[in-house]
Amino acid sequence: MFKIRSLVTALALAGSISMASAWETLPTEAPAPADNATTAEKVELGQMLYHDPRLSSTGTVACASCHNTMLGGEDNRPNSMGVHGQTGGRSAPTVWNAAFNKVQFWDGRAASLEDQAAGPVTNPIEMGMKSWDDVVARLKTIEGYQQAFEKAFGKDAISKDSITKAIAAYERTLITPNSPYDKYAGGDKSALTEQQVRGMEKMAELGCTGCHSGPAFNGAGMFQKFPVMANGYFEAQYHFKKDKGLAEVSKNPADENLWKVPTLRNIALTAPYFHNGSVKTLAQAVTLMAKLQLGKDLPKEDVADIAAFLNGLTGEFPKQNMPALPATPGTTTLN
Amino acid sequence: MFKIRSLVTALALAGSISMASAWETLPTEAPAPADNATTAEKVELGQMLYHDPRLSSTGTVACASCHNTMLGGEDNRPNSMGVHGQTGGRSAPTVWNAAFNKVQFWDGRAASLEDQAAGPVTNPIEMGMKSWDDVVARLKTIEGYQQAFEKAFGKDAISKDSITKAIAAYERTLITPNSPYDKYAGGDKSALTEQQVRGMEKMAELGCTGCHSGPAFNGAGMFQKFPVMANGYFEAQYHFKKDKGLAEVSKNPADENLWKVPTLRNIALTAPYFHNGSVKTLAQAVTLMAKLQLGKDLPKEDVADIAAFLNGLTGEFPKQNMPALPATPGTTTLN
Repeated sequence: MFKIRSLVTALALAGSISMASAWETLPTEAPAPADNATTAEKVELGQMLYHDPRLSSTGTVACASCHNTMLGGEDNRPNSMGVHGQTGGRSAPTVWNAAFNKVQFWDGRAASLEDQAAGPVTNPIEMGMKSWDDVVARLKTIEGYQQAFEKAFGKDAISKDSITKAIAAYERTLITPNSPYDKYAGGDKSALTEQQVRGMEKMAELGCTGCHSGPAFNGAGMFQKFPVMANGYFEAQYHFKKDKGLAEVSKNPADENLWKVPTLRNIALTAPYFHNGSVKTLAQAVTLMAKLQLGKDLPKEDVADIAAFLNGLTGEFPKQNMPALPATPGTTTLN
Repeated sequence: MFKIRSLVTALALAGSISMASAWETLPTEAPAPADNATTAEKVELGQMLYHDPRLSSTGTVACASCHNTMLGGEDNRPNSMGVHGQTGGRSAPTVWNAAFNKVQFWDGRAASLEDQAAGPVTNPIEMGMKSWDDVVARLKTIEGYQQAFEKAFGKDAISKDSITKAIAAYERTLITPNSPYDKYAGGDKSALTEQQVRGMEKMAELGCTGCHSGPAFNGAGMFQKFPVMANGYFEAQYHFKKDKGLAEVSKNPADENLWKVPTLRNIALTAPYFHNGSVKTLAQAVTLMAKLQLGKDLPKEDVADIAAFLNGLTGEFPKQNMPALPATPGTTTLN
């Protein structure tokens, strides 16, 4: 999955690349893998599981706690807070349009939404379940889940595999089309302001879209080094290099500070910014990206124009029903 | 608000009282106080505030975290978990039908839903905000809230008063009518099983409904001592007396171990039980209530019948739309 890496680094630095991705609108449906076709039953079940805090050891942390679909698909915190108030070192990526990421997590270590969903539940500082056997055993005590899994997957189907498939099926519906940019790209030239159009053109000129390409502005699975340029002043403030990114997983020094290119869709809603959530505003994030990736000192006007355009990537959020989570009448599954 | 206390104690022990409350169905609307008429705008705003974790210092705990309307209106934990993983000594009461409680909190220290809503937000182990000024200042930075408050309350209306009024207005809509009991009481004699009818009749015979009276089975604001009977064996297991109840607030020794009579509506969904959440099952809660309040050793069959009836108090939950929480584009309100 890392084949394109060397190509990417070259592309990212090529400021002269035109905005190849321009005019690509966000699809309104996400493709599903062959072994997990999206069905209404799976999506309904997945929405319940996604919002159920009983998937955590304490019964207090659901997927939605850190990837909040009532907000921009995350929590607006520098680092998320898991069970017992613990925090890790990374900022929660948005779940909106995550279906259009070729790989998941900041370091891209999961190859699919299904793989990703398997991670946090048993992570001791996130949802803290001791094992997937414990998760499965707990869900099996909840009659409403027995029925919902049967509808979605057939008899006696509660397993790590079906749980993560249902969650992924739900996540594939979390798409935010019709942003001002999409409307503009679709022909409505009034959908973006003049300032936003200037910002869009500047992003192409500068080379931002060399990496942030494609309909989700995420490079469709490419990895990129961040920061590219050494800068002691900013490093002292933001500690970007402390987390080695992909190398933390691969243990390969060549992967140090390599990251999945994150989507820019709804980026205005997901402050604070970067893998460690250390940068509070979008304007400062734009300034830092120009300086650390492209070696450019952007004038304030350009930063403002680009930030204005990025606000134009905020989409329309589908209306959701609040799920009713199945009960355990007369008892509790929590200790 | 404590005038009826002495009457109550007498009533509770009068096992011969008939089930005066029988056939009272749950109203489908809750009365609002004169200074907070329920409006669609307030309810919509209140639903957003109720689900917004940014009302907590960490941005991780909303009203809904402990009083979860996707579940039985609470969290199925012995004690709720607030910011930084902290826990208090009491079990979260259900928000469903809380509008029919004359007083709020286990110890009844709040005279209204509005008063109640003012408590947890600045409680250091619950939502942990330093002050209401901080809450108001934070919400004022969120443009969508400025607009929603204007619609509900008029210009420049964001204040502790309007925030708690909106939350209370929303909570007044959280009513669960049409339980099997309500249908039975309304004339559908097939709505309860024979066992459930036996359980209902036993509750009246035993005197349970002396306190758990009225349409919400909550005595409409009465206070009661719990436990009434000294029992070293159970006290050693459950430590019921450790928390002094109303006396913790009033500092009056006469109020020791006095509690608001909690609703039995949806009681099957709110395990574990009692003010300290120390009792895991409904059956054990019934056994203990008979022993500690009425001095009776209930045979297992009676416990099963009563628990079956109590399951018949689970109502129909209104379908809710998931609120979209207003954003702070390009920045975060959290530190």
